[in-house]
Amino acid sequence: MLHFEDFSPGRRFDYLPRPVQTAEIVAFAREFDPQPMHLDEEAGKKSILGGLAASGWHTSSIGMRMMIDAFLGDSTSQGSPGIEFMDWKRPVITGDILSGYSIVLDARPLRSKPGLGVVRFRNEIVNQRGETVAVSECPIMFRMREAGQ
Amino acid sequence: MLHFEDFSPGRRFDYLPRPVQTAEIVAFAREFDPQPMHLDEEAGKKSILGGLAASGWHTSSIGMRMMIDAFLGDSTSQGSPGIEFMDWKRPVITGDILSGYSIVLDARPLRSKPGLGVVRFRNEIVNQRGETVAVSECPIMFRMREAGQ
Repeated sequence: MLHFEDFSPGRRFDYLPRPVQTAEIVAFAREFDPQPMHLDEEAGKKSILGGLAASGWHTSSIGMRMMIDAFLGDSTSQGSPGIEFMDWKRPVITGDILSGYSIVLDARPLRSKPGLGVVRFRNEIVNQRGETVAVSECPIMFRMREAGQ
Repeated sequence: MLHFEDFSPGRRFDYLPRPVQTAEIVAFAREFDPQPMHLDEEAGKKSILGGLAASGWHTSSIGMRMMIDAFLGDSTSQGSPGIEFMDWKRPVITGDILSGYSIVLDARPLRSKPGLGVVRFRNEIVNQRGETVAVSECPIMFRMREAGQ
């Protein structure tokens, strides 16, 4: 299990490929982001996104799941206080296959919470053409090994 | 329908109250963020979040939906290039009732895309005790009225 001490700067975790299909784009959009370009093929084609496109929140949530499967799911993660920034650089269109990676930027112990540390990651999501579709940086808190885990 | 020209700095849009229930917290977490504190009541209570807590991405996606219902759904929104920051300030625990508001920070025409403008919003999500649970700032693109809409 990955603890705070395992996240040395520069360490990289690659995501497994993940196809994004019409049904899930529309289901997410109906619940959270019912704008025409996320619900309807024709509306998507007419929009500046150029096709039925996933909500940015959907892309980001898929990115979270790819992080879980790549490394967070087998770690002492205690959650995150937020996102420093999230750039949705290109649309994610139905049929795209996403992958990408998270890389450790830096890590420091949390003075206010003994036994916990904060690790900052840069996260890139890319499509099947190698184009970056989303970039973000975020801190995540982890328990330390010496805390007795 | 709200166009770019309608978003004057300081204009505020209030969200309708929105309860967050166990079933939806767990369903979202299973798909996108299967960490123990988002899946299981006991694990949540033992975590630093203090109870079964919504994934931050779930809270943010609910915030998106509250924006749609408050004003974006009846606008010329063309989507967003990203999030400038998102702070998850307090956990959203099962049974919480969320509300909040978006306020216009500034607005400018997009030189690169005639007929479109970018509006920057500050978005606050609060719980039933009036505590802020999430704050974000983000740009959203809108079509202008004079573009022929």
